[in-house]
Amino acid sequence: MKVTNLMEQIVEDVMEEHWKNLKIECTCQLCKNDILAVTLNALSPRYVAHDKGRVIVKARMMDEQMQADVLREIARAANIVSAKPSHE
Amino acid sequence: MKVTNLMEQIVEDVMEEHWKNLKIECTCQLCKNDILAVTLNALSPRYVAHDKGRVIVKARMMDEQMQADVLREIARAANIVSAKPSHE
Repeated sequence: MKVTNLMEQIVEDVMEEHWKNLKIECTCQLCKNDILAVTLNALSPRYVAHDKGRVIVKARMMDEQMQADVLREIARAANIVSAKPSHE
Repeated sequence: MKVTNLMEQIVEDVMEEHWKNLKIECTCQLCKNDILAVTLNALSPRYVAHDKGRVIVKARMMDEQMQADVLREIARAANIVSAKPSHE
């Protein structure tokens, strides 16, 4: 079965865009993945069946409020992961 | 970045197991994907960074209450999709 959570790409995009401002101690891939997972667990999923509604939903979704919510959750997740990196 | 929402596999497993009892009019792949997407949007995501904690989280998660919640959301999604299939 083919479905995608559009929030995955949205959170990755915002993370890449704001990575430098987040001042995260460890920037290894494991910590990045952990921050992404913690962030996605705090946000409502937006699944679409593949290739249907993807473009429309994504365009409409990236309004300012959404970006602010995503950025807030990324910063929160970054603090959680930085405090207790799983690769210690 | 590599993360997975464990709920995707869990919902697919429960859907496969109970598919016959759900009495869904159309069983095409598009309707199955739509039911999966609607169901996942109604359930809290459980993202894990790849290959870390996957087995532990999954084993612990599939308790009876979880299965009942998943099955209830699948049935609800099946009604929504059956009432308005996207391939009409």
